[in-house]
Amino acid sequence: MDYFSGYISALVEQLSHLPGIGPKTAQRLAFYIISQPAEKAERLASSILDARRNVRYCKNCCTLTDEELCPVCSNPKRDKKTIMVVETPRDQAAYEKTGKYGGVYHVLHGAISPMLGIGPDDIRLKELMARLSGDVDEVIIATNSSLEGETTAMYISRLIKPTGIRVTRIASGVPVGGDLENIDEVTLLRALEGRRQL
Amino acid sequence: MDYFSGYISALVEQLSHLPGIGPKTAQRLAFYIISQPAEKAERLASSILDARRNVRYCKNCCTLTDEELCPVCSNPKRDKKTIMVVETPRDQAAYEKTGKYGGVYHVLHGAISPMLGIGPDDIRLKELMARLSGDVDEVIIATNSSLEGETTAMYISRLIKPTGIRVTRIASGVPVGGDLENIDEVTLLRALEGRRQL
Repeated sequence: MDYFSGYISALVEQLSHLPGIGPKTAQRLAFYIISQPAEKAERLASSILDARRNVRYCKNCCTLTDEELCPVCSNPKRDKKTIMVVETPRDQAAYEKTGKYGGVYHVLHGAISPMLGIGPDDIRLKELMARLSGDVDEVIIATNSSLEGETTAMYISRLIKPTGIRVTRIASGVPVGGDLENIDEVTLLRALEGRRQL
Repeated sequence: MDYFSGYISALVEQLSHLPGIGPKTAQRLAFYIISQPAEKAERLASSILDARRNVRYCKNCCTLTDEELCPVCSNPKRDKKTIMVVETPRDQAAYEKTGKYGGVYHVLHGAISPMLGIGPDDIRLKELMARLSGDVDEVIIATNSSLEGETTAMYISRLIKPTGIRVTRIASGVPVGGDLENIDEVTLLRALEGRRQL
Protein backbone atom coordinates (compact mmCIF):
# COMPACT_ATOMS: atom_id res chain seq x y z
CA MET A 1 0.00 0.00 0.00
CA ASP A 2 3.06 2.27 -0.18
CA TYR A 3 2.03 3.39 -3.65
CA PHE A 4 -0.53 5.68 -2.05
CA SER A 5 -0.20 8.66 0.24
CA GLY A 6 -0.20 8.04 3.99
CA TYR A 7 -3.80 9.16 4.51
CA ILE A 8 -5.10 7.00 1.67
CA SER A 9 -3.14 3.97 2.90
CA ALA A 10 -4.49 4.50 6.42
CA LEU A 11 -8.07 4.66 5.14
CA VAL A 12 -7.59 1.58 2.93
CA GLU A 13 -6.21 -0.29 5.93
CA GLN A 14 -9.09 0.71 8.21
CA LEU A 15 -11.66 -0.26 5.60
CA SER A 16 -10.03 -3.62 4.97
CA HIS A 17 -10.61 -4.54 8.64
CA LEU A 18 -14.33 -4.67 7.91
CA PRO A 19 -15.76 -8.16 7.38
CA GLY A 20 -15.92 -9.26 3.74
CA ILE A 21 -13.92 -6.23 2.56
CA GLY A 22 -10.66 -7.31 0.93
CA PRO A 23 -7.77 -4.98 0.01
CA LYS A 24 -9.09 -4.33 -3.52
CA THR A 25 -12.58 -3.42 -2.34
CA ALA A 26 -11.08 -1.29 0.43
CA GLN A 27 -9.07 0.60 -2.20
CA ARG A 28 -12.14 1.12 -4.33
CA LEU A 29 -14.14 2.40 -1.34
CA ALA A 30 -11.31 4.67 -0.19
CA PHE A 31 -10.99 6.39 -3.57
CA TYR A 32 -14.75 6.76 -3.72
CA ILE A 33 -14.87 8.39 -0.29
CA ILE A 34 -12.05 10.78 -1.20
CA SER A 35 -13.70 11.76 -4.47
CA GLN A 36 -17.02 12.64 -2.81
CA PRO A 37 -17.91 16.11 -1.49
CA ALA A 38 -16.44 16.70 2.00
CA GLU A 39 -19.84 16.78 3.68
CA LYS A 40 -20.61 13.26 2.45
CA ALA A 41 -17.45 11.92 4.06
CA GLU A 42 -18.35 13.82 7.22
CA ARG A 43 -21.84 12.34 7.29
CA LEU A 44 -20.41 8.84 6.94
CA ALA A 45 -17.84 9.44 9.70
CA SER A 46 -20.35 10.92 12.10
CA SER A 47 -22.91 8.16 11.48
CA ILE A 48 -20.21 5.67 12.51
CA LEU A 49 -19.45 7.59 15.71
CA ASP A 50 -23.12 8.23 16.55
CA ALA A 51 -24.07 4.60 16.10
CA ARG A 52 -21.11 3.29 18.09
CA ARG A 53 -21.64 5.78 20.94
CA ASN A 54 -25.41 5.68 21.28
CA VAL A 55 -26.46 2.17 20.47
CA ARG A 56 -26.85 -0.22 23.40
CA TYR A 57 -28.57 -3.49 24.30
CA CYS A 58 -32.31 -3.48 25.03
CA LYS A 59 -32.71 -4.12 28.77
CA ASN A 60 -35.38 -6.68 28.03
CA CYS A 61 -34.62 -8.57 24.78
CA CYS A 62 -30.90 -7.69 24.30
CA THR A 63 -31.33 -6.40 20.73
CA LEU A 64 -29.39 -3.28 19.74
CA THR A 65 -31.30 -0.06 20.26
CA ASP A 66 -31.03 3.69 21.02
CA GLU A 67 -33.22 3.59 24.13
CA GLU A 68 -33.39 1.56 27.31
CA LEU A 69 -36.11 -0.54 25.71
CA CYS A 70 -36.22 -1.31 21.99
CA PRO A 71 -39.24 -0.26 19.85
CA VAL A 72 -40.67 -3.81 19.92
CA CYS A 73 -40.40 -4.25 23.70
CA SER A 74 -41.85 -0.80 24.38
CA ASN A 75 -44.77 -1.27 21.95
CA PRO A 76 -47.91 -1.96 24.05
CA LYS A 77 -49.52 -3.77 21.10
CA ARG A 78 -46.92 -6.54 21.01
CA ASP A 79 -47.79 -9.80 22.76
CA LYS A 80 -45.24 -10.07 25.59
CA LYS A 81 -46.24 -13.67 26.31
CA THR A 82 -44.71 -14.96 23.08
CA ILE A 83 -40.93 -14.73 22.77
CA MET A 84 -39.08 -15.53 19.55
CA VAL A 85 -35.43 -16.42 20.16
CA VAL A 86 -33.05 -15.36 17.36
CA GLU A 87 -29.28 -15.33 16.99
CA THR A 88 -28.75 -11.74 15.81
CA PRO A 89 -30.53 -8.39 15.44
CA ARG A 90 -30.40 -9.02 11.68
CA ASP A 91 -32.45 -12.19 12.12
CA GLN A 92 -34.91 -10.19 14.18
CA ALA A 93 -35.06 -7.60 11.39
CA ALA A 94 -35.80 -10.36 8.88
CA TYR A 95 -38.89 -11.41 10.88
CA GLU A 96 -39.95 -7.82 11.51
CA LYS A 97 -39.91 -7.25 7.75
CA THR A 98 -42.62 -9.88 7.34
CA GLY A 99 -44.90 -7.61 9.40
CA LYS A 100 -46.84 -10.69 10.57
CA TYR A 101 -45.23 -11.52 13.89
CA GLY A 102 -46.96 -9.91 16.86
CA GLY A 103 -44.84 -11.25 19.72
CA VAL A 104 -41.54 -10.03 21.14
CA TYR A 105 -37.97 -11.27 20.65
CA HIS A 106 -34.91 -12.40 22.51
CA VAL A 107 -31.56 -11.85 20.78
CA LEU A 108 -28.83 -14.29 21.80
CA HIS A 109 -25.98 -12.53 19.95
CA GLY A 110 -24.56 -15.80 18.75
CA ALA A 111 -25.12 -19.53 18.91
CA ILE A 112 -23.53 -22.34 20.88
CA SER A 113 -20.53 -23.69 18.96
CA PRO A 114 -18.23 -26.22 20.63
CA MET A 115 -16.00 -25.92 17.51
CA LEU A 116 -15.44 -22.19 18.09
CA GLY A 117 -15.43 -22.56 21.88
CA ILE A 118 -18.71 -20.64 22.29
CA GLY A 119 -20.65 -22.10 25.22
CA PRO A 120 -24.07 -21.32 26.73
CA ASP A 121 -22.53 -18.63 28.94
CA ASP A 122 -21.17 -16.74 25.94
CA ILE A 123 -24.62 -15.93 24.52
CA ARG A 124 -27.54 -14.06 26.14
CA LEU A 125 -29.14 -17.19 27.56
CA LYS A 126 -29.20 -16.22 31.23
CA GLU A 127 -31.15 -13.11 30.24
CA LEU A 128 -33.69 -15.30 28.40
CA MET A 129 -34.16 -17.61 31.38
CA ALA A 130 -34.67 -14.61 33.66
CA ARG A 131 -37.51 -13.41 31.42
CA LEU A 132 -39.30 -16.77 31.71
CA SER A 133 -40.09 -16.22 35.39
CA GLY A 134 -42.62 -13.64 34.16
CA ASP A 135 -45.86 -14.42 32.34
CA VAL A 136 -44.77 -16.31 29.19
CA ASP A 137 -46.90 -18.74 27.12
CA GLU A 138 -44.55 -19.76 24.33
CA VAL A 139 -40.90 -19.59 23.33
CA ILE A 140 -40.39 -19.90 19.56
CA ILE A 141 -36.82 -20.90 18.74
CA ALA A 142 -35.78 -19.26 15.46
CA THR A 143 -32.05 -19.87 15.50
CA ASN A 144 -30.52 -20.71 12.11
CA SER A 145 -30.87 -24.23 10.79
CA SER A 146 -27.07 -24.62 10.83
CA LEU A 147 -25.27 -27.05 13.13
CA GLU A 148 -24.73 -24.27 15.71
CA GLY A 149 -28.31 -23.07 15.42
CA GLU A 150 -29.70 -26.58 15.90
CA THR A 151 -27.40 -27.25 18.86
CA THR A 152 -28.54 -24.01 20.45
CA ALA A 153 -32.21 -24.81 19.80
CA MET A 154 -31.82 -28.24 21.38
CA TYR A 155 -30.00 -26.83 24.40
CA ILE A 156 -32.60 -24.11 25.01
CA SER A 157 -35.56 -26.46 24.62
CA ARG A 158 -34.10 -28.83 27.23
CA LEU A 159 -33.56 -25.91 29.58
CA ILE A 160 -37.10 -24.56 29.19
CA LYS A 161 -39.16 -27.76 29.09
CA PRO A 162 -39.07 -28.34 32.88
CA THR A 163 -40.71 -24.91 33.38
CA GLY A 164 -43.82 -26.12 31.53
CA ILE A 165 -43.68 -23.25 29.04
CA ARG A 166 -44.45 -24.30 25.44
CA VAL A 167 -41.29 -24.45 23.31
CA THR A 168 -41.55 -24.53 19.50
CA ARG A 169 -39.08 -24.47 16.62
CA ILE A 170 -39.69 -22.75 13.26
CA ALA A 171 -40.09 -25.24 10.39
CA SER A 172 -37.28 -26.13 8.04
CA GLY A 173 -38.03 -27.21 4.50
CA VAL A 174 -38.02 -26.15 0.89
CA PRO A 175 -38.01 -22.33 0.56
CA VAL A 176 -41.11 -20.93 -1.13
CA GLY A 177 -40.38 -20.56 -4.84
CA GLY A 178 -37.36 -22.86 -4.57
CA ASP A 179 -36.72 -25.41 -7.34
CA LEU A 180 -36.45 -28.88 -5.83
CA GLU A 181 -33.54 -29.78 -8.11
CA ASN A 182 -31.42 -26.95 -6.70
CA ILE A 183 -32.00 -27.75 -3.05
CA ASP A 184 -29.54 -29.73 -0.94
CA GLU A 185 -30.37 -33.23 0.30
CA VAL A 186 -30.54 -32.35 3.98
CA THR A 187 -33.18 -29.71 3.31
CA LEU A 188 -35.13 -32.13 1.09
CA LEU A 189 -35.14 -34.75 3.87
CA ARG A 190 -36.19 -32.13 6.46
CA ALA A 191 -39.05 -31.09 4.20
CA LEU A 192 -40.12 -34.73 3.89
CA GLU A 193 -39.98 -35.34 7.65
CA GLY A 194 -41.93 -32.17 8.30
CA ARG A 195 -44.69 -32.99 5.77
CA ARG A 196 -48.26 -32.09 6.71
CA GLN A 197 -51.60 -33.54 5.67
CA LEU A 198 -53.54 -31.45 3.14
CA MET B 1 -34.92 -0.09 7.80
CA ASP B 2 -37.45 0.88 10.46
CA TYR B 3 -36.77 -2.36 12.28
CA PHE B 4 -33.59 -0.85 13.67
CA SER B 5 -32.91 2.08 15.94
CA GLY B 6 -32.41 5.50 14.36
CA TYR B 7 -28.63 5.48 14.70
CA ILE B 8 -28.29 2.01 13.23
CA SER B 9 -30.61 2.89 10.33
CA ALA B 10 -28.62 6.05 9.67
CA LEU B 11 -25.34 4.13 9.61
CA VAL B 12 -26.81 1.42 7.36
CA GLU B 13 -28.04 4.12 4.99
CA GLN B 14 -24.68 5.92 4.86
CA LEU B 15 -22.82 2.66 4.23
CA SER B 16 -25.22 1.61 1.48
CA HIS B 17 -24.26 4.77 -0.46
CA LEU B 18 -20.80 3.27 -1.00
CA PRO B 19 -20.25 1.64 -4.39
CA GLY B 20 -20.90 -2.10 -4.49
CA ILE B 21 -22.38 -2.10 -0.97
CA GLY B 22 -26.02 -3.22 -1.04
CA PRO B 23 -28.46 -2.93 1.88
CA LYS B 24 -27.63 -6.41 3.24
CA THR B 25 -23.89 -5.82 3.24
CA ALA B 26 -24.44 -2.37 4.75
CA GLN B 27 -26.43 -3.99 7.56
CA ARG B 28 -23.69 -6.54 8.17
CA LEU B 29 -21.01 -3.83 8.25
CA ALA B 30 -23.09 -1.60 10.54
CA PHE B 31 -23.58 -4.33 13.12
CA TYR B 32 -19.91 -5.18 12.93
CA ILE B 33 -18.90 -1.56 13.54
CA ILE B 34 -21.28 -1.28 16.49
CA SER B 35 -20.01 -4.50 18.05
CA GLN B 36 -16.35 -3.41 17.91
CA PRO B 37 -14.55 -1.52 20.70
CA ALA B 38 -15.29 2.23 20.55
CA GLU B 39 -11.70 3.14 19.64
CA LYS B 40 -11.90 0.99 16.51
CA ALA B 41 -14.98 2.85 15.30
CA GLU B 42 -13.21 6.11 16.11
CA ARG B 43 -10.13 5.11 14.13
CA LEU B 44 -12.29 4.26 11.12
CA ALA B 45 -14.20 7.55 11.36
CA SER B 46 -11.07 9.66 11.71
CA SER B 47 -9.28 7.90 8.85
CA ILE B 48 -12.25 8.85 6.64
CA LEU B 49 -12.07 12.48 7.73
CA ASP B 50 -8.27 12.68 7.51
CA ALA B 51 -8.17 11.21 4.04
CA ARG B 52 -10.98 13.40 2.74
CA ARG B 53 -9.51 16.59 4.26
CA ASN B 54 -5.84 16.11 3.46
CA VAL B 55 -5.71 14.30 0.17
CA ARG B 56 -5.42 16.45 -2.95
CA TYR B 57 -4.35 16.20 -6.57
CA CYS B 58 -0.64 16.16 -7.42
CA LYS B 59 0.18 19.48 -9.11
CA ASN B 60 2.05 17.63 -11.80
CA CYS B 61 0.42 14.28 -12.57
CA CYS B 62 -3.03 14.76 -10.97
CA THR B 63 -2.86 11.58 -8.86
CA LEU B 64 -4.20 11.74 -5.30
CA THR B 65 -1.57 12.60 -2.71
CA ASP B 66 -0.89 14.27 0.68
CA GLU B 67 1.67 16.76 -0.63
CA GLU B 68 1.85 19.27 -3.44
CA LEU B 69 3.78 16.71 -5.50
CA CYS B 70 3.16 12.97 -5.24
CA PRO B 71 5.99 10.59 -4.20
CA VAL B 72 6.59 9.53 -7.83
CA CYS B 73 6.79 13.08 -9.23
CA SER B 74 9.06 14.25 -6.39
CA ASN B 75 11.41 11.25 -6.71
CA PRO B 76 14.60 12.45 -8.49
CA LYS B 77 15.31 8.88 -9.68
CA ARG B 78 12.16 8.68 -11.82
CA ASP B 79 12.53 9.40 -15.51
CA LYS B 80 10.45 12.53 -16.10
CA LYS B 81 10.71 12.18 -19.88
CA THR B 82 8.47 9.11 -19.95
CA ILE B 83 4.83 9.64 -18.97
CA MET B 84 2.39 6.76 -18.55
CA VAL B 85 -1.24 7.86 -18.91
CA VAL B 86 -3.71 5.92 -16.72
CA GLU B 87 -7.39 6.33 -15.93
CA THR B 88 -7.27 6.15 -12.12
CA PRO B 89 -4.86 6.23 -9.16
CA ARG B 90 -5.69 2.53 -8.72
CA ASP B 91 -4.36 1.80 -12.20
CA GLN B 92 -1.22 3.72 -11.29
CA ALA B 93 -0.91 1.65 -8.10
CA ALA B 94 -1.19 -1.55 -10.16
CA TYR B 95 1.83 -0.49 -12.26
CA GLU B 96 3.75 0.74 -9.21
CA LYS B 97 3.28 -2.69 -7.65
CA THR B 98 5.26 -4.25 -10.52
CA GLY B 99 8.25 -2.22 -9.31
CA LYS B 100 9.61 -2.22 -12.87
CA TYR B 101 8.35 1.06 -14.29
CA GLY B 102 10.81 3.93 -13.86
CA GLY B 103 8.93 6.76 -15.55
CA VAL B 104 6.22 9.05 -14.20
CA TYR B 105 2.44 9.02 -14.61
CA HIS B 106 -0.48 11.13 -15.64
CA VAL B 107 -3.84 10.29 -14.06
CA LEU B 108 -6.87 11.24 -16.16
CA HIS B 109 -9.50 10.46 -13.49
CA GLY B 110 -11.78 8.83 -16.01
CA ALA B 111 -12.06 8.00 -19.68
CA ILE B 112 -13.92 9.55 -22.59
CA SER B 113 -17.39 7.99 -22.81
CA PRO B 114 -19.93 9.46 -25.24
CA MET B 115 -22.48 7.02 -23.72
CA LEU B 116 -22.11 8.55 -20.25
CA GLY B 117 -21.62 12.06 -21.63
CA ILE B 118 -17.98 12.25 -20.50
CA GLY B 119 -15.99 14.30 -23.01
CA PRO B 120 -12.29 15.22 -23.29
CA ASP B 121 -12.85 18.28 -21.07
CA ASP B 122 -14.19 16.14 -18.23
CA ILE B 123 -10.90 14.29 -17.71
CA ARG B 124 -7.43 15.67 -16.89
CA LEU B 125 -6.37 15.97 -20.52
CA LYS B 126 -5.56 19.68 -20.60
CA GLU B 127 -3.12 19.08 -17.73
CA LEU B 128 -1.44 16.31 -19.75
CA MET B 129 -1.07 18.51 -22.84
CA ALA B 130 0.43 21.28 -20.69
CA ARG B 131 3.11 18.85 -19.47
CA LEU B 132 4.11 17.98 -23.04
CA SER B 133 5.54 21.46 -23.65
CA GLY B 134 8.37 20.38 -21.33
CA ASP B 135 11.07 17.82 -22.15
CA VAL B 136 9.12 14.60 -22.90
CA ASP B 137 10.32 11.63 -24.99
CA GLU B 138 7.43 9.21 -24.81
CA VAL B 139 3.80 9.03 -23.73
CA ILE B 140 2.67 5.48 -22.91
CA ILE B 141 -1.10 5.19 -23.00
CA ALA B 142 -2.22 2.66 -20.39
CA THR B 143 -5.95 3.30 -20.30
CA ASN B 144 -8.13 0.19 -19.90
CA SER B 145 -8.77 -1.96 -22.93
CA SER B 146 -12.50 -1.27 -22.66
CA LEU B 147 -14.45 0.72 -25.26
CA GLU B 148 -13.95 3.91 -23.22
CA GLY B 149 -10.28 3.21 -22.65
CA GLU B 150 -9.65 2.58 -26.35
CA THR B 151 -11.57 5.67 -27.38
CA THR B 152 -9.52 7.74 -24.95
CA ALA B 153 -6.25 6.19 -26.17
CA MET B 154 -7.17 6.98 -29.77
CA TYR B 155 -8.15 10.54 -28.93
CA ILE B 156 -4.96 11.24 -26.99
CA SER B 157 -2.69 9.71 -29.62
CA ARG B 158 -4.22 11.94 -32.32
CA LEU B 159 -3.75 14.96 -30.09
CA ILE B 160 -0.10 14.20 -29.33
CA LYS B 161 1.16 12.94 -32.71
CA PRO B 162 1.49 16.45 -34.28
CA THR B 163 3.91 17.38 -31.46
CA GLY B 164 6.35 14.71 -32.66
CA ILE B 165 6.50 13.04 -29.22
CA ARG B 166 6.48 9.22 -29.39
CA VAL B 167 3.09 7.78 -28.40
CA THR B 168 2.75 4.10 -27.49
CA ARG B 169 -0.04 1.86 -26.21
CA ILE B 170 0.42 -1.04 -23.77
CA ALA B 171 -0.18 -4.43 -25.43
CA SER B 172 -3.45 -6.31 -25.13
CA GLY B 173 -3.50 -10.10 -25.32
CA VAL B 174 -3.81 -13.29 -23.33
CA PRO B 175 -2.99 -12.69 -19.62
CA VAL B 176 0.05 -14.61 -18.39
CA GLY B 177 -1.12 -17.89 -16.89
CA GLY B 178 -4.52 -17.57 -18.60
CA ASP B 179 -6.13 -20.65 -20.13
CA LEU B 180 -6.95 -19.97 -23.77
CA GLU B 181 -10.29 -21.75 -23.46
CA ASN B 182 -11.48 -19.32 -20.79
CA ILE B 183 -10.56 -16.16 -22.65
CA ASP B 184 -13.04 -14.13 -24.67
CA GLU B 185 -12.86 -13.95 -28.45
CA VAL B 186 -11.97 -10.28 -28.67
CA THR B 187 -8.89 -10.83 -26.48
CA LEU B 188 -7.91 -13.90 -28.50
CA LEU B 189 -8.08 -11.89 -31.74
CA ARG B 190 -6.10 -9.03 -30.16
CA ALA B 191 -3.43 -11.50 -29.08
CA LEU B 192 -3.27 -12.88 -32.63
CA GLU B 193 -3.00 -9.42 -34.21
CA GLY B 194 -0.29 -8.47 -31.75
CA ARG B 195 1.80 -11.62 -32.31
CA ARG B 196 5.58 -11.24 -32.37
CA GLN B 197 8.31 -13.24 -34.05
CA LEU B 198 10.25 -15.53 -31.72
